[in-house]
Amino acid sequence: MNFSSKLIEEAVNAFATLPGIGKKTALRLVLHLLNQPLEQSEQFAEAIVRARRDIRACRRCHNLSDTELCGICQDNRRDGRLVCVVESIRDVMAIEDTGQYRGLYHVLGGVIAPLEGIGPADLEIDSLVHRVEAEGIQEIIMAISPTIEGETTIFYVSKQLKPTGVRLSTIARGVSFGGELEYADELTLGRSIVARIPYQTQGD
Amino acid sequence: MNFSSKLIEEAVNAFATLPGIGKKTALRLVLHLLNQPLEQSEQFAEAIVRARRDIRACRRCHNLSDTELCGICQDNRRDGRLVCVVESIRDVMAIEDTGQYRGLYHVLGGVIAPLEGIGPADLEIDSLVHRVEAEGIQEIIMAISPTIEGETTIFYVSKQLKPTGVRLSTIARGVSFGGELEYADELTLGRSIVARIPYQTQGD
Repeated sequence: MNFSSKLIEEAVNAFATLPGIGKKTALRLVLHLLNQPLEQSEQFAEAIVRARRDIRACRRCHNLSDTELCGICQDNRRDGRLVCVVESIRDVMAIEDTGQYRGLYHVLGGVIAPLEGIGPADLEIDSLVHRVEAEGIQEIIMAISPTIEGETTIFYVSKQLKPTGVRLSTIARGVSFGGELEYADELTLGRSIVARIPYQTQGD
Repeated sequence: MNFSSKLIEEAVNAFATLPGIGKKTALRLVLHLLNQPLEQSEQFAEAIVRARRDIRACRRCHNLSDTELCGICQDNRRDGRLVCVVESIRDVMAIEDTGQYRGLYHVLGGVIAPLEGIGPADLEIDSLVHRVEAEGIQEIIMAISPTIEGETTIFYVSKQLKPTGVRLSTIARGVSFGGELEYADELTLGRSIVARIPYQTQGD
């Protein structure tokens, strides 16, 4: 790409470092900003720097937070005896969006993936065991993706937690609500038959 | 979306104001920046603000520029008697990328589009006429998109330029190189037959 302006080139290159944004898209974004008031670019720039500088990991659950303890950990209407273990903050947000969960979280920061050089020591597993011992947690829900790495992680974490005697569960797996059976993959469908649940008629 | 951090929410909202970027993509971009060194976010922020603050329109051709006259207008190896009229800076970049053109440019800033409230006075048409009169330009190449608005604009500009006596041309239109005839649209194919060009065998 041939830029007549060094400043445009720099701004385009900055956007193009972001994942999934190529030079053409970057140029479109920069030209958009050039057509907006200067304040908008300034606010945009400030929001990015402030987020990068001031966001930290929650001391307890390792969720991203503006304060030492995140809003979820600070909320004393939530059930502190129940902790949901997830890979990343994105999973926290997805579960929060359901509005179905009122316990706390623990963000591992990934899953065990030897091929990518991620071992148990790189994840927040020790701190989870410590929390279970220190906080009187009664149940740990493993909400980890059902991939090979995810299953490995669940297995490893369950072994670490065994001595604490905490109750361990995983999120239910099966055919999606609204999904058509014929389009479900074989593994999911097969397991959903093996792990079938008793049907309760209304009023039971 | 349920954000546990106000700062993340602000950064996500900032990205989500950009065209074609929704909240989910914005979150992905913000989480990416959070994993990079602080300097990268600072450089990113600075590049945006500096571009917005310091980029101006070239005094002569209205291309975006870091200086009063853009790099193309300043380059005295280019042919100042030839001016290519385009809609936007993106077209300048596309033509520069071909490496086939050594004249100057004139950026109109859009095309005449009454439905969007863009009239001739909103475009750099008067300044083009002035340039033709003042700079001894011999040929104007209209490199405008072959849409209804584009054709209207070419017609209007040609009428404005008529008194100056400058030679006027449009870029050639026809079937793309490497394109298959059966996939060309009817209008393009039809016109490419009407406007056929004599075939020259090698060595003629």
